[in-house]
Amino acid sequence: MTNNAAVHTLHSAMRRALELAAQGPSTGVNPRVGCVIVNAEGDTLAEGWHRGAGSKHAEVDALSQLAPGAARGSTVVVTLEPCNHVGRTGPCAEALIEAGVARVVYSVTDSGERSCGGADRLRAAGVDVQGTLLVAEGEEFLGDWLVAARLGRPFVTLKWASSLDGRAAAADGSSRWITGGAARVDVHQRRGAAAAILVGTGTVLADDPALTARDADGALLKQQPVPVVLGRRPLPASTALINHPQSPLFFDGRDLPGVLADLHGRGLRSVFIEGGPTVASAFVAAGLVDEYLIYLAPTLIGGPRLALTDIGVAAIGEQRRLAILSLDRLGDDVLIVARPQTN
Amino acid sequence: MTNNAAVHTLHSAMRRALELAAQGPSTGVNPRVGCVIVNAEGDTLAEGWHRGAGSKHAEVDALSQLAPGAARGSTVVVTLEPCNHVGRTGPCAEALIEAGVARVVYSVTDSGERSCGGADRLRAAGVDVQGTLLVAEGEEFLGDWLVAARLGRPFVTLKWASSLDGRAAAADGSSRWITGGAARVDVHQRRGAAAAILVGTGTVLADDPALTARDADGALLKQQPVPVVLGRRPLPASTALINHPQSPLFFDGRDLPGVLADLHGRGLRSVFIEGGPTVASAFVAAGLVDEYLIYLAPTLIGGPRLALTDIGVAAIGEQRRLAILSLDRLGDDVLIVARPQTN
Repeated sequence: MTNNAAVHTLHSAMRRALELAAQGPSTGVNPRVGCVIVNAEGDTLAEGWHRGAGSKHAEVDALSQLAPGAARGSTVVVTLEPCNHVGRTGPCAEALIEAGVARVVYSVTDSGERSCGGADRLRAAGVDVQGTLLVAEGEEFLGDWLVAARLGRPFVTLKWASSLDGRAAAADGSSRWITGGAARVDVHQRRGAAAAILVGTGTVLADDPALTARDADGALLKQQPVPVVLGRRPLPASTALINHPQSPLFFDGRDLPGVLADLHGRGLRSVFIEGGPTVASAFVAAGLVDEYLIYLAPTLIGGPRLALTDIGVAAIGEQRRLAILSLDRLGDDVLIVARPQTN
Repeated sequence: MTNNAAVHTLHSAMRRALELAAQGPSTGVNPRVGCVIVNAEGDTLAEGWHRGAGSKHAEVDALSQLAPGAARGSTVVVTLEPCNHVGRTGPCAEALIEAGVARVVYSVTDSGERSCGGADRLRAAGVDVQGTLLVAEGEEFLGDWLVAARLGRPFVTLKWASSLDGRAAAADGSSRWITGGAARVDVHQRRGAAAAILVGTGTVLADDPALTARDADGALLKQQPVPVVLGRRPLPASTALINHPQSPLFFDGRDLPGVLADLHGRGLRSVFIEGGPTVASAFVAAGLVDEYLIYLAPTLIGGPRLALTDIGVAAIGEQRRLAILSLDRLGDDVLIVARPQTN
């Protein structure tokens, strides 16, 4: 192959590896990883991806498709730096060295405390290693997992729905429906992609939510987030969430970093916070929100029922500036996805 | 010309007439009207537009470009039904009949109490008359004026700027700057297109606004809205608005329909309400807002300083549903333009 053709092959293979990675479970304790093995002519020899904790890592999954020796001299294109860690599976770096691969090209560097170092191990064994190919795409894909790995806590998404004037309900507490069907479907899909869903006892007492991820017909989606309830108010034994497919977790809510650390310790890498206002405002005030999903309905309500209450901003210089990632119409509603401004 | 070519000519001429109309002043007592006169071959003979109260109407302006007799047998394409009213100028219908035009094609029907009836007058004189060509474009262009003519009051635009959680300021009242430069430029352009700008005494006392329409460098735009202040709180003699190029009007604000009727009586056909929250909420509660401009800054503030306070919604069934006309990024900010839902 010419040099240009080789570059083109690597890019194509990495894009394919990202597609493969997306087939893995989004809520698992492990990152979703995809792998493509190509020969010197640029032909694909094998593909693999990680199907969740306890199953083969993507590189080993791809190698297992090949006859012994068939990977010798090949190039392994993988979305995450091969691990150097003996967990429930052996380290991928060793497996690749044993298979005699000539080259490893990866997208995202593994910063995990126990899993990092794979690239160095490969180089030490004489394998040609290139990192950060399509790194922006790779990092965007692994976003939640990277934040969780860096911060040692789950990636926190805060969602609320409000009128254009910031109200979550009318003065009497009634709120069905402010946003429309398209917004509800979107919320349920995002619930299904989260490891945990978190609300306060106030929301449980007021709305008795099922906290399940459902399709438009009300049927349960395949993946269900673990329900987490914060607060000190007692709940009746008959709450709907006791029927949730996942066992609910309860915390008094006094120590939000402690709650997140506990969830992280259970292998929950993302939390979807659905409120209400007290819980939402507490997480904002504590600076513990990584992404905001704000569903705005084309309506005005006024009055006292605010989506956010107090977040500790006394003067305008203390406002919490965000960067808007996307702005979309969703049926009649508007969805704003935003993250804390980092500069 | 073939029939298709003739239709094409009329559409082109009407689009040109709308462009001409836009050259007139947007804040006058009269509608902005444009006119194109074409001959039987589809060639443009003359163009005209209305330059404001006391000056020639568009049709007469166009006719005045031509030698006597030159308009005989021509087609007059005009954005608004020719008037049948003797005001400061003679009725256009008579002028067109005298000029011997063969045909009049207009977009929007004139529903003004004193000016309507031009089409009937022309038909009675044997002129071929066709109405409602490109009527959607014509009505959109004349929007404010049509509402004012129908309701007997100015078209009311309510603007506010808030954080994504509906706050107009931090707890201590500080609010500079929530929205950015692009939003400010946009607001000033819209001020300059309004006949009046309205605020409450609370805003005057808190911010001492100039209430002028300015460009990005702070220079006054050509057209300035008449400042209108509502409220019963006394203002210091030194308020900035006394230097406004237009004399301010003051009302106690107890009777909002009365205020609008007074402004309408002064020939002010559009009002741009810039708040604060008390005035904004009062107009929303009274159902007197025709268009909303909501500038949302990518920030969270929380606390007590809401852009809208109470608008009389006790239960969710009473919420004020809107239809979003446009949703745009404006620098870092978002601008939502919406109108009350009519169904």
